[in-house]
Amino acid sequence: MTGTPIRLLGFSGSLRAGSYNSMLLSHFASRLPDHVSFEQAQIADLPHFDADLMADGFPKPAERLIAQAQAADAVVFATPEYNFSVPGVLKNAIDWVSRGKPAPLAGKPVAIMSASTSMLGGARGQYHLRQMLVFLDAHPVNKPEIFINFAPQKFDDTGALTDTVAAGLVDDMISALLQWQAKIAP
Amino acid sequence: MTGTPIRLLGFSGSLRAGSYNSMLLSHFASRLPDHVSFEQAQIADLPHFDADLMADGFPKPAERLIAQAQAADAVVFATPEYNFSVPGVLKNAIDWVSRGKPAPLAGKPVAIMSASTSMLGGARGQYHLRQMLVFLDAHPVNKPEIFINFAPQKFDDTGALTDTVAAGLVDDMISALLQWQAKIAP
Amino acid sequence: MTGTPIRLLGFSGSLRAGSYNSMLLSHFASRLPDHVSFEQAQIADLPHFDADLMADGFPKPAERLIAQAQAADAVVFATPEYNFSVPGVLKNAIDWVSRGKPAPLAGKPVAIMSASTSMLGGARGQYHLRQMLVFLDAHPVNKPEIFINFAPQKFDDTGALTDTVAAGLVDDMISALLQWQAKIAP
Amino acid sequence: MTGTPIRLLGFSGSLRAGSYNSMLLSHFASRLPDHVSFEQAQIADLPHFDADLMADGFPKPAERLIAQAQAADAVVFATPEYNFSVPGVLKNAIDWVSRGKPAPLAGKPVAIMSASTSMLGGARGQYHLRQMLVFLDAHPVNKPEIFINFAPQKFDDTGALTDTVAAGLVDDMISALLQWQAKIAP
Repeated sequence: MTGTPIRLLGFSGSLRAGSYNSMLLSHFASRLPDHVSFEQAQIADLPHFDADLMADGFPKPAERLIAQAQAADAVVFATPEYNFSVPGVLKNAIDWVSRGKPAPLAGKPVAIMSASTSMLGGARGQYHLRQMLVFLDAHPVNKPEIFINFAPQKFDDTGALTDTVAAGLVDDMISALLQWQAKIAP
Repeated sequence: MTGTPIRLLGFSGSLRAGSYNSMLLSHFASRLPDHVSFEQAQIADLPHFDADLMADGFPKPAERLIAQAQAADAVVFATPEYNFSVPGVLKNAIDWVSRGKPAPLAGKPVAIMSASTSMLGGARGQYHLRQMLVFLDAHPVNKPEIFINFAPQKFDDTGALTDTVAAGLVDDMISALLQWQAKIAP
Repeated sequence: MTGTPIRLLGFSGSLRAGSYNSMLLSHFASRLPDHVSFEQAQIADLPHFDADLMADGFPKPAERLIAQAQAADAVVFATPEYNFSVPGVLKNAIDWVSRGKPAPLAGKPVAIMSASTSMLGGARGQYHLRQMLVFLDAHPVNKPEIFINFAPQKFDDTGALTDTVAAGLVDDMISALLQWQAKIAP
Repeated sequence: MTGTPIRLLGFSGSLRAGSYNSMLLSHFASRLPDHVSFEQAQIADLPHFDADLMADGFPKPAERLIAQAQAADAVVFATPEYNFSVPGVLKNAIDWVSRGKPAPLAGKPVAIMSASTSMLGGARGQYHLRQMLVFLDAHPVNKPEIFINFAPQKFDDTGALTDTVAAGLVDDMISALLQWQAKIAP
């Protein structure tokens, strides 16, 4: 697949070093065609959202993230599910992004993936995330949905995704996202 | 209403000084009968949840919050809705609380309220919170539901809740929570 | 607005004669530009979905509805909220539609509206419907969202929508749906 | 476990003869202790809910179902997931039940199970059902949650549940439901 350059912004919902979702995001990034550039959102150094912190403009990490989101042509989330929803740290990033003007994700295509040790593979968090994206006016890919369950069996010690079914779904997701992006781009 | 002492832990989902939800929580606390003690959860100084931070035990603010939650007989949330869900900072607090053992909120009664400038009064966030509470094994009050919409019209400059309908609902919520607590207490 | 002919299929989630949602759907239809044709889905005579009824092909009312959905270029729902979700009768129609091959709504734009006597205006049902649309691979409009609350005050005795704010939102929804349709049409 | 007689009302969300959820419900019923009586709700002959049908009282099948629900001490649902929610036919039964006065399920304990051919085992439908139960003022069991995925591998040709993990969870659910019932009964 070739085409005009596309900037993709990726969010991992987990901060820990050995995160399966960060591995999944890296795998996704490694499979992108050449015309798609990838950068990962830094969300760990964002303060907790507090409207009072905006009195003199955005805190630097929020300003940076908003600018990245505004510059992106498409977004991908790889996120665990905590307490049947998305992690607070990811939600906090969304809370900051949503304050940017113009609306950073409005009209943009989004891919959603999750990996989890449990049987459901993070599904519950994904539907909460989809509801948030309605407010952000973003447009998530519907199919495929990627729920990587029993994650420890599907990545090796180096962090590589070794499950061929999951890897095939990631490639399908990349195709779906880029086709969707081509269709709905301004 | 009198009875054995009950410890109530309250969460405000908003950090800003002029938060309507913090006002609502204060109003709720002010209406409690004498045998119910109230303390508010400190969530602003929690780090973003990261399982790697638990390597040598919980960070101090998390340890404190978990202990508070374990000691509580009942919990109340007053939270805004951000991006059609609960604020990241509140979710982050839940992510820490959920790691306590024994499970801090298991079997405990919960009251949920929200205030918002919008017409829906924070409803969307409440249903996400209810889903999180399934994982936490807590038992939210079903009725009344409190969605204070157009919040700036319902509090005065001192932060007092001046809307009589809303104030009546808060009193109803206190009664419902305490009756529910009496029923499901261990 | 002019353009190639567009076929729009409308669903009312309520069967009763004096349904506010049916009035809302009629109002929506009356405001469509000339190149958009409208027909309303008949859902009252569908049997309860039962896969055993498909042994010798679809029941006639289901076959008809599936064909209508396959022929449609876009879909609009006007639905009440019952028990914090969509009515069973509407969900049943979706259960039949989803069995059509090719997938009747895949890739198609959808507008969602609700009217309700309550303060929330049917919002809870809309988010359940949005989750169903992920499976159906349809693409709902994000903005505007239309929640007509306190409905009896907003329609007159003839069933006309008299609330000017709501009427403006309906016109905005028509524009949004047609622009979205133009963008994502195959 | 022994005790005062308890009347349990069970709903299967699927109408087809070979339904895994009906098998699951039968298995559940077969494992109940002697003091618990079980009857299954008939939902297939309910008309689609339409408030106009209540002009002269409830239709007979609705009247019967409402009376059963009012008489029940506890309720169990075994339901497939259709289109990422509960089946329309089950939702329709809930729409009728909810019109009974006094509120048929208010304050009552509920167990939820699902079986599905897919990996998620019906989870998405369960969370929609939980939201409906808030309106109905019922109190679902939180743990265990039962999502029987890849259902064809877990039942034999006679309809018996042969998966020992699933069977253990059903027994756990029965214990949890009866303990919860003992706690919250009026």
